[in-house]
Amino acid sequence: MAKIAMLGAGFIGDFYTFSVQGQRNRDKVQIIYSRDEGRGKAFAEKHGIPEWTTSMKEAVDHPGVEVVVIGLPNNLHLEAVGLAAGAGKAVLCTKPLGRNADEAKKMLDMVEKAGVTHGYLEDLVYTPKTLKALKSVRMGAVGQVIWARSRETHPGPHSDWFWTKDISGGGVLLDMGCHCIEISRSYIGKNIKPVEVMCWADTLVKPIEAEDNALGWVRYENGAIGQFEVSWTFRGGMDLRDEVMGTEGTIWVNNFLRTGFEMFTAGGTKGYVAEKAETEKGWLFPVGDEVVELGYTDMFTDMFNAFENKTEPVETFYDGYIVNEIMDACFRSAKSKKWEPVKIKEWRGLEKAEKINAVNYYDSDHILIKEETLPDGTVKLILKDNKSGIISQIVKK
Amino acid sequence: MAKIAMLGAGFIGDFYTFSVQGQRNRDKVQIIYSRDEGRGKAFAEKHGIPEWTTSMKEAVDHPGVEVVVIGLPNNLHLEAVGLAAGAGKAVLCTKPLGRNADEAKKMLDMVEKAGVTHGYLEDLVYTPKTLKALKSVRMGAVGQVIWARSRETHPGPHSDWFWTKDISGGGVLLDMGCHCIEISRSYIGKNIKPVEVMCWADTLVKPIEAEDNALGWVRYENGAIGQFEVSWTFRGGMDLRDEVMGTEGTIWVNNFLRTGFEMFTAGGTKGYVAEKAETEKGWLFPVGDEVVELGYTDMFTDMFNAFENKTEPVETFYDGYIVNEIMDACFRSAKSKKWEPVKIKEWRGLEKAEKINAVNYYDSDHILIKEETLPDGTVKLILKDNKSGIISQIVKK
Amino acid sequence: MAKIAMLGAGFIGDFYTFSVQGQRNRDKVQIIYSRDEGRGKAFAEKHGIPEWTTSMKEAVDHPGVEVVVIGLPNNLHLEAVGLAAGAGKAVLCTKPLGRNADEAKKMLDMVEKAGVTHGYLEDLVYTPKTLKALKSVRMGAVGQVIWARSRETHPGPHSDWFWTKDISGGGVLLDMGCHCIEISRSYIGKNIKPVEVMCWADTLVKPIEAEDNALGWVRYENGAIGQFEVSWTFRGGMDLRDEVMGTEGTIWVNNFLRTGFEMFTAGGTKGYVAEKAETEKGWLFPVGDEVVELGYTDMFTDMFNAFENKTEPVETFYDGYIVNEIMDACFRSAKSKKWEPVKIKEWRGLEKAEKINAVNYYDSDHILIKEETLPDGTVKLILKDNKSGIISQIVKK
Amino acid sequence: MAKIAMLGAGFIGDFYTFSVQGQRNRDKVQIIYSRDEGRGKAFAEKHGIPEWTTSMKEAVDHPGVEVVVIGLPNNLHLEAVGLAAGAGKAVLCTKPLGRNADEAKKMLDMVEKAGVTHGYLEDLVYTPKTLKALKSVRMGAVGQVIWARSRETHPGPHSDWFWTKDISGGGVLLDMGCHCIEISRSYIGKNIKPVEVMCWADTLVKPIEAEDNALGWVRYENGAIGQFEVSWTFRGGMDLRDEVMGTEGTIWVNNFLRTGFEMFTAGGTKGYVAEKAETEKGWLFPVGDEVVELGYTDMFTDMFNAFENKTEPVETFYDGYIVNEIMDACFRSAKSKKWEPVKIKEWRGLEKAEKINAVNYYDSDHILIKEETLPDGTVKLILKDNKSGIISQIVKK
Repeated sequence: MAKIAMLGAGFIGDFYTFSVQGQRNRDKVQIIYSRDEGRGKAFAEKHGIPEWTTSMKEAVDHPGVEVVVIGLPNNLHLEAVGLAAGAGKAVLCTKPLGRNADEAKKMLDMVEKAGVTHGYLEDLVYTPKTLKALKSVRMGAVGQVIWARSRETHPGPHSDWFWTKDISGGGVLLDMGCHCIEISRSYIGKNIKPVEVMCWADTLVKPIEAEDNALGWVRYENGAIGQFEVSWTFRGGMDLRDEVMGTEGTIWVNNFLRTGFEMFTAGGTKGYVAEKAETEKGWLFPVGDEVVELGYTDMFTDMFNAFENKTEPVETFYDGYIVNEIMDACFRSAKSKKWEPVKIKEWRGLEKAEKINAVNYYDSDHILIKEETLPDGTVKLILKDNKSGIISQIVKK
Repeated sequence: MAKIAMLGAGFIGDFYTFSVQGQRNRDKVQIIYSRDEGRGKAFAEKHGIPEWTTSMKEAVDHPGVEVVVIGLPNNLHLEAVGLAAGAGKAVLCTKPLGRNADEAKKMLDMVEKAGVTHGYLEDLVYTPKTLKALKSVRMGAVGQVIWARSRETHPGPHSDWFWTKDISGGGVLLDMGCHCIEISRSYIGKNIKPVEVMCWADTLVKPIEAEDNALGWVRYENGAIGQFEVSWTFRGGMDLRDEVMGTEGTIWVNNFLRTGFEMFTAGGTKGYVAEKAETEKGWLFPVGDEVVELGYTDMFTDMFNAFENKTEPVETFYDGYIVNEIMDACFRSAKSKKWEPVKIKEWRGLEKAEKINAVNYYDSDHILIKEETLPDGTVKLILKDNKSGIISQIVKK
Repeated sequence: MAKIAMLGAGFIGDFYTFSVQGQRNRDKVQIIYSRDEGRGKAFAEKHGIPEWTTSMKEAVDHPGVEVVVIGLPNNLHLEAVGLAAGAGKAVLCTKPLGRNADEAKKMLDMVEKAGVTHGYLEDLVYTPKTLKALKSVRMGAVGQVIWARSRETHPGPHSDWFWTKDISGGGVLLDMGCHCIEISRSYIGKNIKPVEVMCWADTLVKPIEAEDNALGWVRYENGAIGQFEVSWTFRGGMDLRDEVMGTEGTIWVNNFLRTGFEMFTAGGTKGYVAEKAETEKGWLFPVGDEVVELGYTDMFTDMFNAFENKTEPVETFYDGYIVNEIMDACFRSAKSKKWEPVKIKEWRGLEKAEKINAVNYYDSDHILIKEETLPDGTVKLILKDNKSGIISQIVKK
Repeated sequence: MAKIAMLGAGFIGDFYTFSVQGQRNRDKVQIIYSRDEGRGKAFAEKHGIPEWTTSMKEAVDHPGVEVVVIGLPNNLHLEAVGLAAGAGKAVLCTKPLGRNADEAKKMLDMVEKAGVTHGYLEDLVYTPKTLKALKSVRMGAVGQVIWARSRETHPGPHSDWFWTKDISGGGVLLDMGCHCIEISRSYIGKNIKPVEVMCWADTLVKPIEAEDNALGWVRYENGAIGQFEVSWTFRGGMDLRDEVMGTEGTIWVNNFLRTGFEMFTAGGTKGYVAEKAETEKGWLFPVGDEVVELGYTDMFTDMFNAFENKTEPVETFYDGYIVNEIMDACFRSAKSKKWEPVKIKEWRGLEKAEKINAVNYYDSDHILIKEETLPDGTVKLILKDNKSGIISQIVKK
């Protein structure tokens, strides 16, 4: 049983607490920190949390607390991590880790110096579908991954601070690009170096300073591409989809808007349909258990197991730092309009990754480019002569 | 924290134990009963269970056990319930409760007389999608439910005893009809009396004595129909789908084969794709977390919460008994080839349910039958004159 | 090029004419009959039809007309067929052929006596998906068909006459059951005799005399079941789905509401979304080309090819008659509450159909009931001993 | 009725001829040209074409021919267009128009100088779903389009010449990028200038000189992005999907792999499942009528109607030229690793397109950034102060 200080009584703190204290879980939030006393108290009552405080330090230092969970605006992560590391307590921080790689690196250094368990709360890497898909990829189900697209779009975040660049550090690229980048990276292989990025970002719809739409490609050393698509201006709900192309297979994951649950209502329920749903009438697409489907359940299981077993969770501050470096390169690329290198200060993965390679030989003289069954039942082979390089086709019955 | 004796080390015992001891749950299986010692021991080691036994009574009577979970073949439910009731312990029994209503009624009487908590482990009523759909129905999202279809089909059960009528008590109608009947009943309203049933059952494909396919309609007192479709001869995996028609809306739930997770693999993984998947190549449709998606997680949460709080779970032995009565009527109908009454010995729901009623008045003289927007943008109304009964149409711009 | 008299200027006449004169088709409607002159004239102008008339006989007898297409209310089919047969012209009649089997038989006799080409305009058997699915079934893709479900539901028909039993002859069972019955029959095999039916029909929602919901099973001589589900009270658009279970495979066809075309609109278009769509906001599911997707294009191609080549189309008046006989039995069953025989006056199919049979032998002493790969990668076989009938299981690595 | 010379007896000529002569169409192919006599003759017999020839000029000059349809490898388009223009005949050319913009511009100049009808056979802009989606966009259903993704991937083309750069002019970017670019351009608006492109292209899997995977963004003058994704190494069939994000809505179109037609087969049919399907067992996803669903039917209807009515089809050689210019810029960008300008020699659209603009005012002092219903039913508004630029939130019951 882990005893927790929850920092932050907003939307994400709510989701975290529902997850941690849900079902028959054994972990408990001991104290909630909110700078607003009324809000903290209400949160405590709602979730049956024994104590609340308006002092972040008090929450962290509470003797009954073993693990600090940070669900605060981006500009407060550094301070909160500092307090937890100072108190020698395990610390789990929401995404993105920092507003930029510098902040993230500082946090990483702090927790490593303090020797505490640290977890990066990148929930979307832990959705049950993603976990199973990643396992299939590891087992070779799709061959070598050559491209992984992750898309996260919705009509914009819940709180005012997201929209204010000083606090958030950036717009949709920072807010949701971090999810997509880490998802693609997980499919391609976290020990393969991200080499360079190309990013487009623009403020197309919303009257804000930061970008409300962004697209990007992260090129990995083995040639694979991680593609992200993020938007705060999508209409129709929250679109969380991943697609993976491998040399031997394909994966399509839809975590939210199309999960086999469809409802038409003429009258409309009065209640909450799903996170970021837009309508209460017509065809709706609810999600069974959002806390599970968004990955919170499996994420906290991994985090608290790691804490108890003194191991590392799947997502650590190092991963958060890498993601911040990739995003920093993205912001540079969006300005320079060209590919920009990812500048990782301390690379801990493979020193050199092999290029993707999937050559099939037809016979000793020919490479098989493609094999296809035609409408008339015959099989057409496209072959390349090893020596001449000439490409030809043969048809077999 | 609930301390459990698990009776049965087969497929369902495995799923139950994964669920009870999964994630960060606080409940624990203390002892596993299997009539086969090797199997019981292996099961204990696999799941980290402290003790195993080949004596059902020893497992139930174990002083460290508070709750008995029955995951045994159908012919052993009565004996196991008797032991648990005798020991004054809470008892949760897998589906179907009895091989017939007589057995079920005996079990119901035993646990009520003993005054112990009793739960009917009808997991598919607890899938996250079903729970949310039922909540929407209660809130009025689809108006009055007039028809609920539940379909469960796959290529046949896992163990030999299912296929042997003496042990199982019946074929697919008993094995899976129980799921579908309770799902439909939950949508229509558990306090509305099931009045009569029409059932078709046949042995079309498998060389067995019992039915391998069955279809049925359960008519409820308010006029609603619960439709079930079950098969042990379906090809393509496990098809678990529900459809609900209400006067104001529609619900479609797909719990398994199409949940937003699709994978194509040319090579094939070596592993387990999903319960009752048929292939390891081509397009596959895995499920994220089967234990969650099949309802086990939410079911045990409800059951153990009820046990701890001394309340009733959503599904009790009374529900199991009702389902057995409906199935008994189905077997009679399949033989007699006509509608057969459901003979409930002790009805605890509404004494008299109102007929479904959804009349809309257009004006004081006319009922509105239908309103439709035509391709040219005009609106056509179909009206019925209250007095003459004559039906006419008007078109409005 | 076929020259056509179109009888009926309503919704269905519109669809037929769009289909016949659409794309680069060579067939032309020469004259349109409507009892209402203004409507006939407007129809002619809309579609570029040279002539219009308020005399059905004049339209049929027009010397430039070779083929009569009937798109009239059910109570006028008999008269119209009589006129066409009398004039010795080919005649294509919309569904259902008759209000009952007596009417249908009269029409069949008329056209056969006159020796004219006759086609039954059962469009849903001709949807491109259904045609391809039927072809796959014929080629053995799903083995022997044991069950075929066809579902057609929407919020009710377009015109007042449908709702008036004298004119229509019945409610939703007659209006849409005819579609579903012929679709299932096509999958199971049109030369296999429909033996008996079980039907439930009720007026649950609409204030009308006829049934607004109906369910039914048609049992064929080989043991297969054709299941239909029809409703005039479905909410959410028009639901046209078919499902087929075979001994070796499965087919799922969705012709309308989920065809890979999804649109969310916050503002709403002003236009026509799709036949029987219910909303103009939120998530909508339009269909690409309704005329194609509903089968009209392929149906008229078959019909006019048959006319020109002096062959039989896939759907003739004989098929219409069989469907009417099945529906008559359904109405009887809905009243008697038991299975009712289908009384076909002149059966032209197989005299005796073999029972479905799919026994697989494991070895000379055992029948293989089932083979399954378990989570641990082992393969479990369920076997039946030929002599003793005892069922056992073995597990192979 | 149009009389046609078909140039090319390969895969695409086959599809074109099936389309032109399918259903009850009035158009006919009079002569087929193939450089291989046996192939031409076989093609003529298969399709009932009166004549065949090995001389391209003979086919074009045939006095019974009015329209020349080019279904030849890319390196022969220029020659064929030259012959048709020289003969003063209408000419329809398959995609891409040229191997590069220079070739395309020459063809455009030729046909405009000759004053003949010219059509660019970009079929995927004409799929029934795309046509209806485009119509919805024009009617304002999704507001202003800000992003349109078009994806076309499959396991590689049918014939050897595609894989040989001298003949094809390029790899997958040229072969399929042309489709995606024109689809996105159609959604964003064909009169809005494509300004610059960013493209990644690589040879990841196949042992060929040209690129086998490419990704790109085309930025339009109003700020919108057209995104394309093409691959010759996709596994699982042919993936043709489009996604559109507008300020007021969303469109998702799936033309091929998920169209509401699903089949599981244990045995496998012997026949042709669908263009570029990969398997004959397990779950398959056929398409109803490929010729319709891939846009051929509607494309030729538009082309021949334009020819007869002396109007312009939706897709002309000018469109083909624009697409080639965009692709030329893509090839430059893939090399330079930065955004490259699109160099259109003669722009015929809007001189200056307005920026996308979708500002909503909450009151005279505040812009509404976002409105959202929270789980507790309250409505949260995110507002921006016009003067200070400060972003704040208010919650309303």
